[in-house]
Order: sequence, then C-alpha cells, then structure tokens
Amino acid sequence: MLVPTRLYSLTASQVLRLLKNDTITVEQYALSILGRIEERDSIVKAWTYLDPQLVLSQARALDQIPPGQRGPLHGVAVAVKDVMNTKDMPTQFGSPLYEGNQPGFDSSAVAILRYAGALILGKTVTTEFTATNMGPNTTNPHDPNRTPGGSSAGSAAAVADLQVPLGLGTQTAGSLIRPASFTGIFAMKPTFNAISTEGQKTYSVNVDTFGFFARSMEDLQLVADIFALKDDELPSSVILKDARVALIKTPMWDKAGPGTDAAMEKAATILKKHGVKVEEVSFPPEYSDGKALKRMLEIIANSDAQAAFLREYRMDKTKLDPIIRGFVENSANYTRKERVQALDRYASMRPIFDEIAADFSAIITPSVPDEAPLGLDDMGSPAFNFIWTGLHMPVIHIPAFIGAHGMPLGISVVAGRFFDQHLLAISKALSEPLMAEGGWKIS
Amino acid sequence: MLVPTRLYSLTASQVLRLLKNDTITVEQYALSILGRIEERDSIVKAWTYLDPQLVLSQARALDQIPPGQRGPLHGVAVAVKDVMNTKDMPTQFGSPLYEGNQPGFDSSAVAILRYAGALILGKTVTTEFTATNMGPNTTNPHDPNRTPGGSSAGSAAAVADLQVPLGLGTQTAGSLIRPASFTGIFAMKPTFNAISTEGQKTYSVNVDTFGFFARSMEDLQLVADIFALKDDELPSSVILKDARVALIKTPMWDKAGPGTDAAMEKAATILKKHGVKVEEVSFPPEYSDGKALKRMLEIIANSDAQAAFLREYRMDKTKLDPIIRGFVENSANYTRKERVQALDRYASMRPIFDEIAADFSAIITPSVPDEAPLGLDDMGSPAFNFIWTGLHMPVIHIPAFIGAHGMPLGISVVAGRFFDQHLLAISKALSEPLMAEGGWKIS
Repeated sequence: MLVPTRLYSLTASQVLRLLKNDTITVEQYALSILGRIEERDSIVKAWTYLDPQLVLSQARALDQIPPGQRGPLHGVAVAVKDVMNTKDMPTQFGSPLYEGNQPGFDSSAVAILRYAGALILGKTVTTEFTATNMGPNTTNPHDPNRTPGGSSAGSAAAVADLQVPLGLGTQTAGSLIRPASFTGIFAMKPTFNAISTEGQKTYSVNVDTFGFFARSMEDLQLVADIFALKDDELPSSVILKDARVALIKTPMWDKAGPGTDAAMEKAATILKKHGVKVEEVSFPPEYSDGKALKRMLEIIANSDAQAAFLREYRMDKTKLDPIIRGFVENSANYTRKERVQALDRYASMRPIFDEIAADFSAIITPSVPDEAPLGLDDMGSPAFNFIWTGLHMPVIHIPAFIGAHGMPLGISVVAGRFFDQHLLAISKALSEPLMAEGGWKIS
Repeated sequence: MLVPTRLYSLTASQVLRLLKNDTITVEQYALSILGRIEERDSIVKAWTYLDPQLVLSQARALDQIPPGQRGPLHGVAVAVKDVMNTKDMPTQFGSPLYEGNQPGFDSSAVAILRYAGALILGKTVTTEFTATNMGPNTTNPHDPNRTPGGSSAGSAAAVADLQVPLGLGTQTAGSLIRPASFTGIFAMKPTFNAISTEGQKTYSVNVDTFGFFARSMEDLQLVADIFALKDDELPSSVILKDARVALIKTPMWDKAGPGTDAAMEKAATILKKHGVKVEEVSFPPEYSDGKALKRMLEIIANSDAQAAFLREYRMDKTKLDPIIRGFVENSANYTRKERVQALDRYASMRPIFDEIAADFSAIITPSVPDEAPLGLDDMGSPAFNFIWTGLHMPVIHIPAFIGAHGMPLGISVVAGRFFDQHLLAISKALSEPLMAEGGWKIS
C-alpha cells in the first residue's frame, strides 16, 4: 500500500478519506504529525501539553475500531486551546494558579469531538484565562519575530504550521478571527451559544464563543456538522453571479492599515470580476460611535469577569495577572448602570444587524487592522472583531491576502444569527476566487 | 462548656457564632447534622450522595484551622444541588448517564464556598439535568405526600427539614423560588450572571441562574456577601413608613389559586398596617400576553438546550429522558427565527422592568400558584417565576403564609438588575412584619 508522505500536511477532510478506507492507520498519521511537531516546536512553541505516548496509544485505540463503526472525524488530529478541560491531559488556562491541574473530564466540545472519533492531540497555548493580550512566547509560523495573535495563539499557530489540521479556540473579542488572519488560515466563530461552552473557562457569559481553525473551508464545514449547526432552512447553492455582498468598513475603519485597506479593495475587485454585486454599506449612524461600541463591549466582558474570576481571586489573587485582578476588583470603576446599558444596547442592535445581513448574501468586513505586528508582546488588536462578537453573529475568516511584509491577511464574512450553514455555503463560494487570486497560499 | 442541643436546627448565622468562638467544634456540629439526616432521610430523601466519614474528616480538618484564619462561613454545612460539580463527591446530574461520575473538581460556586470555610456536606436530589419536572422521590418535609417542588428539590427539602442551614440551587424557570415556597423557606435568585455558573451543568446559557436557600434573611445576606454581590450604591437603611411597594399580579394571575390570592392580599394588608405604601401596578399592556411570555421563555431555554445536551445525546441518547432528547432533536420545531425573536423580546423588556422597579422600593409578586400539590409526580408550575428569570432580575422568596391545607406559601420580592444588595435590605425589612404576622413559622 502506498502511504502518502507529509501526512501531517493534509487537511482534515483529506486525511479522513485515507483513514476511513484504511489506506493509512491513525498510528501512521499520528507519527507523521508528531514528527512535524518535533521538527517545528522549538520555533513555534504552540503547545502547552503534548504527550507523544498518549497520542500514540489513543491512535492505536482508534485503529482498533472496525471501519463500519468509525466516527465522522475518525483519527483526525485536533489541537485544544488550554482553556477547555480535558479528561486525560492537564488543563492550565495559561495561569500559574492551575499548574499541573488535572480536571479529569472533557469540556462539552472536546467530548463531542471525541465521540466523533477525533484524535485529541494536546493542549495549545493561550493567554491567561484568554483575558490578557500578552504573555505567551508562541511565534507566528510565517515569521518567528511576529505574534500569531491571541488569545487562541497556540491553536492558530499549530494549524498554520501544518502541525495539526484542526484547532479549537474561543473568542470574547477577537481571539479566533485575529489569530486566523495573522497566521493565514480559516476560522469560524459560530453564532453565540450555537455550540456549548460548558467545561471551558468562562470569561464573559454574554459573549464567550467557541470556534475552530482549519486550513480549508471543507474542514470548517466538517466540524460545523459534527456540532450539528443548523439553520431554519438548508442553504441554497450559491451562484456567484446572483450573490450580493455588503462591504461594511465599520466605525473602526480608522484603525485599518494599508494591508487591510488593500485587502478590502482587492476582495471587492475579485468578487466583482466574478459577478458578485459588492455594495458598500455604511454602519447605521445611530451606532457609528466606534469608541462607544468598544467601551460597551469592554464593560460587558470585563464586568462579567468580576464573577467569572472571583474563584481564582479567592484561591490566590497574588497569582493572577494584575489585569484579571483588576476585573474582579472592578478597578475600572464600571457601574452596574453602565453594565446593563451596555448589555441592553448590544441586545437592541442585534435584530437590526440581522436585518442588514438578511438583505444581502453576506457581509464582508475587515478581520484585523493589518498584518501580524512585530514582536511577541502585543498580540494585536480586536478592533474589527468585537462588534460581531457582541452582536452574536457568525463569522468566517478567509485568509486570502498578503500584506506589505509578505505576511497573511484576510477578511471576515458575517451572517445573521443562526445562519451558520448559510455562512459556510456563501463563504465557500466567495473563498474560491478570493483564495485563487488573492495571493496567500496555504501550503 | 455548654453545648446547645439541636445544633442542626440553627441557622448558618447562629451556628457560625458558636463555631467562630470555639463554643462548639465543627465535628460536634457535623455529628448533630448527620444525626438529623439519619433520623429523617428515609422520609424526606433529599440526598443523592452523602458520606458521613467524608463529612467528619472535613469537619475535623476545619477544626484544625486557627481561629484567626477561619473563613466567613467556617464550618457551616452546605447542601449542593447535584448539578454542580464537586471534587470529592460524585456528580450525577440526576441522569443515569452520569451514574458514579467523579468529576474531581468543584464548580466555581462550590469552590468559593469552600474557600470561605463551608463544610460541603453532600449532593442533593435534582430532576434530570434540572430540565424535567418529575422523577425524584424527594418529599416535602411538611407533608410526605406532597412534592417539595423542583428542580432544586433536595436542597430545598434539606434546608426546610433542618438537615442543613444552607442549600445551593439553580433556576432556569422557577427551580429555586417554587421549591422555597412549597417547603416554607427563604431563597435568593440573584441577578443573572452575578454569580458564576461555571462548573454546573448548563441547561440555558441565557437564563440559568445560581441561587441559594436558607431559613433566615440574615443567612441569605451572609451567602450573598461571600459571593461579593454589590450594587452601585450601598443600600440605604429601610424605614417601612417610607417604603413604596409595587404589587404586580402579572399576566399569569389566572393561575393563582385561593392560597396565593389570600397570600397577596394578606401581604398587602400587613405591609400597609406597618406604613408601607402598597400600589397595585399593572403589567405594561404590550407585554401582558402571558401565554406569549411563557412560550418565549420556553423557546429560549429549550433551544439553548439543543447545544447544551448535544454531548449527552452523542454519549447515549437512549439514556436521556424523552423530554431532553426532544430538546436536542428540536421536536417542538422551534425555528431559529422564533428563537432570536424571543431572545430580543426579553432583552427589550429588561430595561423597562428595571425602570418599573426603580420607581418603587421593590416589587412584590406571587411565588407559586398555590401550596405544594399532592403527589410527587408533578413538581409544580413555574408560572409566576419564569418572567423574572427571563428578565434577569433578582428575586427573594419570603415564606410568610399558610395555605388551605396548612402548607407554606410565600411571595416574591423583586428588584432591578444588579440591585441585589438593595433587594436583600428591603426584603429583610418587609420580611419582619410578614414573618411575624403572616402565619408560617420556620421551626
């Protein structure tokens, strides 16, 4: 039997075909993956926990499953952000408080992937409780002097570096879409609460969203289906000539650097060339105060954090990052009045943006201000992400473009709440010309 | 040293004074509690897990703590609803799927109570995942032929039966306030998300609320302070003659039986006698369709349940109650469109009801249709609770009255979001004449 080389470099969907028909064993695949990681880990530093012996024993156990009983993700390696509990690995939340913590149970999402046959590979680097914007020494696989973006730094870097085809992450402001853009991969942040966050560390009950990274649209679809994402109607097949896309620069547009400016323009040009109607749509004027939108999301998330991190504060507040200690102590002096106003204001915006989305095939909007910045201290800005997170709308990142320094740069596609399957369908259709002509190639 | 008898019957605040100054040891207290449980458990059946040896070893460990280092809940026994994970006890969620499940970690709330020095006594009976309304054989301590109410059945029954002074519960519709009324004790459902639900089983991310039972207002205050509940301003001291209370019968008033009818009238009479201005306030007419309000909350909770129970569905759907299986399969055929409409509608109501609350010292409203019904199959109706849960407003139950069959019956006091300390202060002031003259006495 001919075993393809570089198994580690295959997407989930590609390797699944080989695994399902026994062209390769899960163990062979795991060995290839582990080899890649060994080769690259000293540079990328994506993992906070990875036990090759555990991986191989899991792989062999999966190989024992008769072909007819194999799950829809049989043997596919998945990287788990270390804010999700895992029954057979430590879960440390990027916090010294949880060093060596062995929870002994899986988060809901990890369990669902295990039932689907996934090979849960290891735990990836996160910022402390996902709530700070610095700390990890994980590097961008495309330039070790640049950040991969946070907080889902390790999962994004591992997927981008061909160490694993699928990575799990979470987003409270921009922790999925931003690292996907910085590392040049696809990501999906589904509709808020479409996938359970049970068993992952809570930062903000009102906006924390579970999501995932992959190197192809086909793979995002695969994972979305395992989590049973459903719309009211099956998405109709997309014909680019019939598609109408709203290009929304958002009130944060003054944060866009030349890379994002060019990416948005190039996206519009390519899509128009393929018959897509692209209309620039301005943000509703009553919500166009970007600073106010940003402050409201900060109030929501960081006020939610008061209760979320009280436990750790009581455990040992001296081991908390001062930022997180400040949340619990409310050192920003957010009032409860501001808090309910921010909650109610975002809630009131949601139906309005759903309606805008319903008028179009999709919204396209920036993912980041620009390429990944130099250095590892600043993990980048969520300026273009937090609005959609706060609106609970599903977002897919398409990594189609290249910035001035040769680093990847993508755009976000956004749909109305619970139009996740529609978003997958339209994003796939839009991604084809964008990936073909945008410039960035996923190796 | 004189050791009071019937230590088990003391409130948390009472026993705390004895424990803090070494009048009694935690072990003596634990022995008294265990004796009471042994005497009563075959009738009340409140516990799903209780290991006397574990309790005594924890008690002895607490006794080793030097007086100066003792926590604010030093040695006080707490019953934990078995939907909250505990590091040293099984957590079974009322589900056969989790028989013998040993999570090895504490929920956020349980951990915070442990850091405060609580004696975590054992796990109490819940309906399956808190999401069904039947099942447990826990009885009402005041009449074993009647239900204690669900889903927090065991915690309410144990507190009412003097088996433990404090019990933890959760509410998605009426799972705290209803059993508190049926069993004749105090309860507090704080503002949504004022206390972290991390580490407890999720039913509905949008409304699940952690709360607690006690036999005195002083004890509710004690627990609220341990969870650092704070308002924007310190609550001012309440003078009954200056208090103005809105009596709101709600659009569910047609569900009120003679017991609740009399209780509301008696509450108004007593309060007026003590100088409180009681004004009947009608529900805003645009929200007065009770059936629509109920259906919207069902859509929110039961649609949220699709993702919440997908894991268990994949684990083994044959071991799920058909109701829960139906949630995951969406057998009610809720559309996502209805779901976002229900979410947005409740969200739009919240500031309006906060404003109504702000115009008064508090809102008083029914807790239940009537006394606990006969039989153990029907755990009662949340008709008078779900609206406030959906509105995210804090609620305190005052168990002041008696129904036609001699069973307890109380009323709810409601405040605006994040007015939890205000609610505690006004409820304490209102509870004094109500408890003195209402008829129900907590033994």
